[in-house]
Amino acid sequence: MDDQSRTPVSVLGLGSMGRALAAAFLAAGHPTTVWNRTAAKAETLVDQGARHAGSIKDAVAASPLIIACLTTYDATLEALEPAATALDGRALVPLNSGSPAGARRLAAWATEHGARYLDGAIKNVPAAVGAADTLLYYGGDRSVFDDYEPALRVLGGDTVYLGSDPDLAALYEMAVGGTLLPALVGFLQGAAALQARGLEAASMVRFSIKWFEMINSVLPTFAAEIDNHRYDNPASSVNLFLAGAADDVELGREANLDITWHKPFHDLLERAVAAGHGEHSISALIEVIKPT
Amino acid sequence: MDDQSRTPVSVLGLGSMGRALAAAFLAAGHPTTVWNRTAAKAETLVDQGARHAGSIKDAVAASPLIIACLTTYDATLEALEPAATALDGRALVPLNSGSPAGARRLAAWATEHGARYLDGAIKNVPAAVGAADTLLYYGGDRSVFDDYEPALRVLGGDTVYLGSDPDLAALYEMAVGGTLLPALVGFLQGAAALQARGLEAASMVRFSIKWFEMINSVLPTFAAEIDNHRYDNPASSVNLFLAGAADDVELGREANLDITWHKPFHDLLERAVAAGHGEHSISALIEVIKPT
Repeated sequence: MDDQSRTPVSVLGLGSMGRALAAAFLAAGHPTTVWNRTAAKAETLVDQGARHAGSIKDAVAASPLIIACLTTYDATLEALEPAATALDGRALVPLNSGSPAGARRLAAWATEHGARYLDGAIKNVPAAVGAADTLLYYGGDRSVFDDYEPALRVLGGDTVYLGSDPDLAALYEMAVGGTLLPALVGFLQGAAALQARGLEAASMVRFSIKWFEMINSVLPTFAAEIDNHRYDNPASSVNLFLAGAADDVELGREANLDITWHKPFHDLLERAVAAGHGEHSISALIEVIKPT
Repeated sequence: MDDQSRTPVSVLGLGSMGRALAAAFLAAGHPTTVWNRTAAKAETLVDQGARHAGSIKDAVAASPLIIACLTTYDATLEALEPAATALDGRALVPLNSGSPAGARRLAAWATEHGARYLDGAIKNVPAAVGAADTLLYYGGDRSVFDDYEPALRVLGGDTVYLGSDPDLAALYEMAVGGTLLPALVGFLQGAAALQARGLEAASMVRFSIKWFEMINSVLPTFAAEIDNHRYDNPASSVNLFLAGAADDVELGREANLDITWHKPFHDLLERAVAAGHGEHSISALIEVIKPT
């Protein structure tokens, strides 16, 4: 099944995402070596043609391109320590989540051991790996991106190089991904309010999807307001959001929900009003989130 | 320009949304009467063919279908008081935001004065009024929806009747809309983290849009987990989110951001773990948001 024109690749870490990555390389004909601390996770991949490395050092030695998908940067560094001498000349591409500082720590360690370092982030779920519109972005050593772009593109068709800083992918991943938990809690609270009335969460899904599409439609405007520091032509003002705060409390009480998480948001709104942003765009909240 | 086959409609309240609603009725050939406390807001609509009512009572008397788009339910009730005797036999359709309790107060008052009451919510921005896929939903008197559905559909092609409770549109609007502020603050914090590195907010917009599309792709699964009370086959576990909390703090410190709003979310995660949901789907957070 291997195609000798394809770059051999090693995938370290076989959680649900790591397995999806390895499966995509296998499906595209890449000679693929896999390693996981718990070997059993490699079984289905071996059935699909993967080579299972008995040690992480063997896995690193097996391929010029090393994709790491362990839990954190620090866990990756720790796992790689027994393989340090094998890293020389390899391209190390971690795809875990984590902070920019974590990425910088791993990059410094890996380059010290002779690896070329390109940090990546996959902004999607394992089931989306390999799809034409699945987004992955990378920051770090440009030569790794240029040498292996066809292989990286196997993981998702929307493959982007952000720049040479080794922590850029982590920075963007956190900047972009920071909407997930608050947005989900907002959705779950809405579902809880419906349940309190005997209605199913499923009944709001179609509406919630349209609502996030609406949010998407206004993001370019908010970004332009932020980048230009011009908040004076608001589609929705800070005061408009603040006016809704009492309704939130009323519904929370009626449905008997824990809405303690609202308070810091209302505090941000009030601080923005106090700073003179009441009739400005809601995007002006960034001015009270940012350093003063 | 009036089409005598079209239902005459009165629009009360000419903020940016009210003006967009009136303009849509005018464009569709509806005889349209408008009223606003500050008359100047009616001028461009009068140029487009609207009749301007000198009092809210005249506006209510002018049409069988009354669309109210004032700031709140209580403001609507207060504004309508001088027109109470003109409400008998009219269909009152408020489209403001507000709490279910507010909708019930207005519904009780209006029906007491002989109006038929259908509460609506428009889940979009003024610029989207009239588009084929713009969503509006309604709850309350079914006969109003049935009698005037063609007119209501002028405001958006995705027009839905939720049920006979007069507060259903407000309930769904708040349930669905509750993601907006937390999602925006998440986005703004991300933009602030980029700005701290000299990068533009615009550079993350394309990625954020894809991220919300990913969130949309998982909502049906989360809703099914919630409705079935089955959280044991997680795509993303509570523990996975909790593991990211330290990264949030690290990035917040590095970019000097106010991240006090994270704490209640992390508290929810920790309470969910304490309740045995650590390895369950993140949707299990609803169990600690809901009444106990």
